[in-house]
Amino acid sequence: MSKASHTECTSEMLPVRDALDIISGKWKLLILISISSGNSRFREIERSIPKITSKVLAKELKDLEENELIERTVYDDIPVVIKYTITPYAKTLQPVIQALSDWGKNHRKKILGR
Amino acid sequence: MSKASHTECTSEMLPVRDALDIISGKWKLLILISISSGNSRFREIERSIPKITSKVLAKELKDLEENELIERTVYDDIPVVIKYTITPYAKTLQPVIQALSDWGKNHRKKILGR
Repeated sequence: MSKASHTECTSEMLPVRDALDIISGKWKLLILISISSGNSRFREIERSIPKITSKVLAKELKDLEENELIERTVYDDIPVVIKYTITPYAKTLQPVIQALSDWGKNHRKKILGR
Repeated sequence: MSKASHTECTSEMLPVRDALDIISGKWKLLILISISSGNSRFREIERSIPKITSKVLAKELKDLEENELIERTVYDDIPVVIKYTITPYAKTLQPVIQALSDWGKNHRKKILGR
């Protein structure tokens, strides 16, 4: 490969950095997978993700809502019911999740095959 | 979507979690892009990635080497020259980088279009 100038390099990095700014970290994609799979209540989502804490989940849900990847709906019931659903925009992340999933499966095979 | 049991949910999450364990964080993919673009020396890589610190870069390069995504070669020169190259295995991450890049471009359009 020929050596890129810094400008070229940064322009290639920029969209990846933009994406990582929104979804990086250990939890956000797992939360989106959990909600996509039908978990909509806080405790359901929490139970479906091994080792996540309530505090972290609350923070991540807030971030995801701010970035319009999930919607938080309050149902005026007694007691009040809060449900999380993924937005149509979150579905545009499917190719990213699929690529990571494919790579993760392959990586596990590689590690186990040693 | 029908509600998945926790077992189903975790099996869908597992490969994504495996992948995120290796490449999550802000820097690893940017470092791989930088090295792929032709930067091979520590200072070159450092200069090509805005805001990364030497300490963080050193740690991330070590992790990437341990996971066989980059190779560190010491050339017995005076002074000693150390070069980093990406491994064939790192090239299997290309679909992940491409999916993130596509999503990042789309996200930037969405944000700017508001």
